Amino acid sequence: MKNGLFTASASFPKQVNIVEVGPRDGLQNELSVSTADKVALVDQLSATGLRHIETSAFVSPKWVPQMADSADVFQQITRVPGVTYTALTPNLKGLELAIAAGADEIAVFASASEGFSQQNINCSIAESLKRFEPVLRIANENGIAVRGYLSCVTDCPYDGPTLPAQTAQIANALYQMGCYEISLGDTIGKATPLRFAAMLEACMNDLPLQALAVHCHNTWGQALANIYQSLLMGVSTIDASVAGLGGCPYAPGASGNVATEDVVYLCEQSGIQTGIDLDKLADVGAAICQRLGKQPNSNAALAILAARRQKQA
Amino acid sequence: MKNGLFTASASFPKQVNIVEVGPRDGLQNELSVSTADKVALVDQLSATGLRHIETSAFVSPKWVPQMADSADVFQQITRVPGVTYTALTPNLKGLELAIAAGADEIAVFASASEGFSQQNINCSIAESLKRFEPVLRIANENGIAVRGYLSCVTDCPYDGPTLPAQTAQIANALYQMGCYEISLGDTIGKATPLRFAAMLEACMNDLPLQALAVHCHNTWGQALANIYQSLLMGVSTIDASVAGLGGCPYAPGASGNVATEDVVYLCEQSGIQTGIDLDKLADVGAAICQRLGKQPNSNAALAILAARRQKQA
Repeated sequence: MKNGLFTASASFPKQVNIVEVGPRDGLQNELSVSTADKVALVDQLSATGLRHIETSAFVSPKWVPQMADSADVFQQITRVPGVTYTALTPNLKGLELAIAAGADEIAVFASASEGFSQQNINCSIAESLKRFEPVLRIANENGIAVRGYLSCVTDCPYDGPTLPAQTAQIANALYQMGCYEISLGDTIGKATPLRFAAMLEACMNDLPLQALAVHCHNTWGQALANIYQSLLMGVSTIDASVAGLGGCPYAPGASGNVATEDVVYLCEQSGIQTGIDLDKLADVGAAICQRLGKQPNSNAALAILAARRQKQA
Repeated sequence: MKNGLFTASASFPKQVNIVEVGPRDGLQNELSVSTADKVALVDQLSATGLRHIETSAFVSPKWVPQMADSADVFQQITRVPGVTYTALTPNLKGLELAIAAGADEIAVFASASEGFSQQNINCSIAESLKRFEPVLRIANENGIAVRGYLSCVTDCPYDGPTLPAQTAQIANALYQMGCYEISLGDTIGKATPLRFAAMLEACMNDLPLQALAVHCHNTWGQALANIYQSLLMGVSTIDASVAGLGGCPYAPGASGNVATEDVVYLCEQSGIQTGIDLDKLADVGAAICQRLGKQPNSNAALAILAARRQKQA
């Protein structure tokens, strides 16, 4: 048994930190969610055991009108001790607003591919990194940790496959600039485990394992397999979105974020602690989906809800 | 890198045989599909490069009215040379009908857990094996290969977790009786990769690797991760259902069979040949789903169809 059970699980982390991105990355792709519903979602998530919640974004309301009420959301949530409430901030103005709103942590975002950088944030990768320099400096002066999102780590909708060395180089640049963690995003969900592993391997050569998080999209159905491969390589921070909130803007009708429920089930059943109450989490996802008038995009959540209905019948 | 790219892929099979179960295992869970639609589905599947299609079942129409037209389906399909058209046959009467209909191969089904055996086929595991003896003997006399399905290989809805040694023992019994291949079914889709690997490992100790197939359900979202782990262990036969046809009868609203499209994408992107045209396969799934009035339950298919719509727009 060269690749059997015991070899495979030897490098598993004992516990994982799940970064819940539903309220921001998820709801950003939904039309017209009220401030009250956003606040309720964040508060309900805080009660599941999640310790890291991407709460909102301070971005231009001209570009992202869904996030125009970010300051209100931060003001109205009930903060649970031990939970980190984060905000996405692309620039100094966003940083100022995030500091004023009391965000515990901020996140900047760059692309591993030039094509996506140009299309998504209207500048080259090098220019985007240069823009983040003052953001990182001032955040650090204010004692605010900065997370770096890196998109298109294996594939770009404009440039095709991304070379692992390229991803590792930009990830390392963000790390050297002061991002404590780099979230490696398979933005269009095209990666399969071996290709994802090659990218991870390149990043692990340049950065400490503890500085790497994975952000897998399920557009092609591969997210859980890619996350499993990441766990096999010792990665211990995983981004996920409750109820799989957030479609993929590049493939209408297709899936985007991997569902937090499915990730929690994978981890807990593999002996990896998440600290999250899966039943509660499924309820939170069902509640926001009811408000949005759609079904949770999580198989584990649907299985939990169906089993409960069956028990009651 | 103890568990990195090169170690991981060393035991990958070069090619896999995908056993398409949509026309039988899938449509059995759908109400009122016409014989013509069934025939069209099988014929379209034959044209995608699939080489193994579970076409129908010769079971009591009292219990499974959806399969009452099995003989007509076998008579009306256009047989493509090189494609094996199989039928599920629980008993001698079913076998006779399957032989008369010209099935290339038959399949019997047993359970690895007593609870499911009693509930699903109204007898103990031992009794079910005894019933298969004459079926296997007469099939072999007629030169018809017999596949064995084993359900609840890791979990049973009635008995809870199944011990790996128990699954291996029943799998081996089926093999010793003359089944050339045992399809290991995670009937309620609760397995995660390490538990699935433990079960596989036990089976691999008793049976040749070439005699093992995996049949993963996606009820809890784990099917692709479990299949990936199976590939890491060298398994080269995978059951799947086009468009994820076939719900899970034990969890209404939840997913059942893993989608063939998602499996083909995983394999082909991992350098494992399937011989299947993924674009054609997505079309076949879309066509039958249109007849059924529902969306394909396959992320890869939805991504392909969405990308195509975008290109045309």
